[in-house]
Amino acid sequence: MNIPQSSFPRVVIIGGGFAGLAAAKGLEKQELQVVLIDKHNYHTFQPLLYQVATGGLEPDSIAFPLRKRFNDVENFYFRLANVIKINPDKNGIETSIGNIDYDELIIATGSTTNFFGNTNIQKHTMEMKSVPQSLNIRSLILENFEEALLTSNLEERKALMNFVIVGGGPTGVELAGALAEMKKGILPKDYPDLDIRQMHINLIQSSGEILKGMSAKASEKAEDFLIKLGVNVWKNLRVLDYDGKVVTTNGEDNFRAETVIWAAGVKGEMVDGLQAECVIERAARIKVNEFNQVVNHPNIYAIGDIACMASKENPYGHPMMAQPAIQQGKLLAKNILAKLANKKQNAFIYNDKGSMATIGRNKAVVDLPKWKFQGVFAWFVWMFVHLFSLIGFRNRAIVFLNWVYNYIRFDRETRLIIRPFKKKHSANS
Amino acid sequence: MNIPQSSFPRVVIIGGGFAGLAAAKGLEKQELQVVLIDKHNYHTFQPLLYQVATGGLEPDSIAFPLRKRFNDVENFYFRLANVIKINPDKNGIETSIGNIDYDELIIATGSTTNFFGNTNIQKHTMEMKSVPQSLNIRSLILENFEEALLTSNLEERKALMNFVIVGGGPTGVELAGALAEMKKGILPKDYPDLDIRQMHINLIQSSGEILKGMSAKASEKAEDFLIKLGVNVWKNLRVLDYDGKVVTTNGEDNFRAETVIWAAGVKGEMVDGLQAECVIERAARIKVNEFNQVVNHPNIYAIGDIACMASKENPYGHPMMAQPAIQQGKLLAKNILAKLANKKQNAFIYNDKGSMATIGRNKAVVDLPKWKFQGVFAWFVWMFVHLFSLIGFRNRAIVFLNWVYNYIRFDRETRLIIRPFKKKHSANS
Repeated sequence: MNIPQSSFPRVVIIGGGFAGLAAAKGLEKQELQVVLIDKHNYHTFQPLLYQVATGGLEPDSIAFPLRKRFNDVENFYFRLANVIKINPDKNGIETSIGNIDYDELIIATGSTTNFFGNTNIQKHTMEMKSVPQSLNIRSLILENFEEALLTSNLEERKALMNFVIVGGGPTGVELAGALAEMKKGILPKDYPDLDIRQMHINLIQSSGEILKGMSAKASEKAEDFLIKLGVNVWKNLRVLDYDGKVVTTNGEDNFRAETVIWAAGVKGEMVDGLQAECVIERAARIKVNEFNQVVNHPNIYAIGDIACMASKENPYGHPMMAQPAIQQGKLLAKNILAKLANKKQNAFIYNDKGSMATIGRNKAVVDLPKWKFQGVFAWFVWMFVHLFSLIGFRNRAIVFLNWVYNYIRFDRETRLIIRPFKKKHSANS
Repeated sequence: MNIPQSSFPRVVIIGGGFAGLAAAKGLEKQELQVVLIDKHNYHTFQPLLYQVATGGLEPDSIAFPLRKRFNDVENFYFRLANVIKINPDKNGIETSIGNIDYDELIIATGSTTNFFGNTNIQKHTMEMKSVPQSLNIRSLILENFEEALLTSNLEERKALMNFVIVGGGPTGVELAGALAEMKKGILPKDYPDLDIRQMHINLIQSSGEILKGMSAKASEKAEDFLIKLGVNVWKNLRVLDYDGKVVTTNGEDNFRAETVIWAAGVKGEMVDGLQAECVIERAARIKVNEFNQVVNHPNIYAIGDIACMASKENPYGHPMMAQPAIQQGKLLAKNILAKLANKKQNAFIYNDKGSMATIGRNKAVVDLPKWKFQGVFAWFVWMFVHLFSLIGFRNRAIVFLNWVYNYIRFDRETRLIIRPFKKKHSANS
């Protein structure tokens, strides 16, 4: 890894997502050597990935180069690498670019798509947890429309214009809404030869309500918004399989569709090397105490999606979202500094600031602890919060400009197939 | 292809670059059926590709969706396809999505990189004619810097930080300048552990001057600017080979470098099916008369880079640049309309509006027919012209915003490895 030995303790952070970034910020400019490892050289603002997938934003404006954030920080080292294994006994980790020892280790690897062991679904559906994956979805949507133009087989054309989104959480809802807006304003203009009535957007939720983590009012209103936008919302329907052609369910309805997006679950992005008792196998999360310390390992911490801190309010761990991740990262940084200074550490208490989801133009739902509201104002609040949560002035300015443009023009202009997804042979041409 | 038969004559245009787009615009809203075929679903503004390669602009802001440009035009059909072959005898073409007949055919396939038959060079160097290729260069630059951090072998590190750009035309000069600015302002901050003095940018030109097509003053001044920016300019040096490790030349100097960008030549992007007498084999260009008609084929035209119209001023055809392409496209559209109306067609006369190249911040060279100037004012002229040549309000606004930001902050913020180039196994992760 070629990182110099220092007289300061070394803190290694795996992952530059919301949690890892918050921890790294809290540890900068201290008597510490900080090593941040990520498999990408940028931080991804995941809440806006769906807009990249649907042509509303450029990928570069929701990603931020990690080196840039820390390039004026001494004793800070970023390394682009995949972590292979942790060796807690040796206080070291193995990575794709060599081994490194740590004094304190922070695991902030985040989460990955959970296919619940169904390899067919894993093979044939699209996921949307990273920028490249979102770009793949964008390419596939447009490639399927191009293909729909060419076939004279009606069933095939319908399948190419049929979209199935599995999972009615925020990701599925926001993506379904954005697709519905593409159907409304953009695709009929771009593809006047296609009968846009043959385009269907199906959102499938296994339980009886979408946006399960939010209030009943938000859930109902979101469903209402989706239906108004022309999305078919299927509740109490469970997807059993997808062979690349037909989505089979436990109900009467099966779906012939060429584009299936799997947003039905996430699990921790597990790293190897921890003992079985530290890990909740099923959720792929790491058990931590109220200080985010991993069971039996006083100098290993897990924060964010990968961490499972059972509490009275959240017996199965906190929701796998940005807020708990940021809050845990911030507190952990303080606690590590306190620990090294032999001061008292504080237990984590989640401050639930609320949650929100956007369905489309002027349509969002917001649950604040003391106030729940939906509609136009909620939509502006959603935009405001997301804009100011982005890192970097340039990103904010460009996202703002795109949003204003898209709002005024009813448009999504970045509908480019930069890297074809289907035709892999031409990926570099 | 699924394009309906119409009572109007059908004009098929192959290629949505500067030439094809200009022709398509000139033919819209006439008593014609127009079919535009391109292998991308967007028009690429090639003059700014080097800024995508060096992290100054997002790819989406220099590309424009072709469907959007024509989505309110009747009798206009865009098809995403590769053209396989032309069958002049049958007035038809074969494509990756089927065959199509034409009444009039416009070949506007543009140009591709010319490796002059050297397969080693083709295999190991990078080219920069398309958006994906530019993104590959961006990824490679950053990946090599990441790798340079890891090696303790000095020779290897130097090779990873050594950049060779072959070809001193506008592309090579602009790219060398942009890299030099990355060396100055960005890379030392992002990679404080590397000795930036080990980064070298070599621009190799086989003849005695760079920017050969421009005035002697522009050429000298551009060289001067490059040298001030720290670029090693090698003139009268010819690259013979590159095995992926070492660039060998006909001089004393060979270059061990991991990043070699080939900007030493272009040739036409030839399509199969034309008779030998229509084609200039060596340059891969199609011989046309002063009406851009292909020899012996009164209803086939070639325009832009692919066309070679020998004239007194340009005995080997016009320069392979945007201006002749746009002018030929415009005139051809008029001529085709005139031909169908049995009116007089006009011969093409190239109106050379001048040429320009930017080397870096406040440093550009501009040759106008009656006025040649260099420096700060030239740089502003360059920016103004390029900004207003972009298609679409959104693209212009976003490029402008990026330029202002980059200028004020001395920054290039889109230095993201979205799709790794070297580590192909992780291309979709």
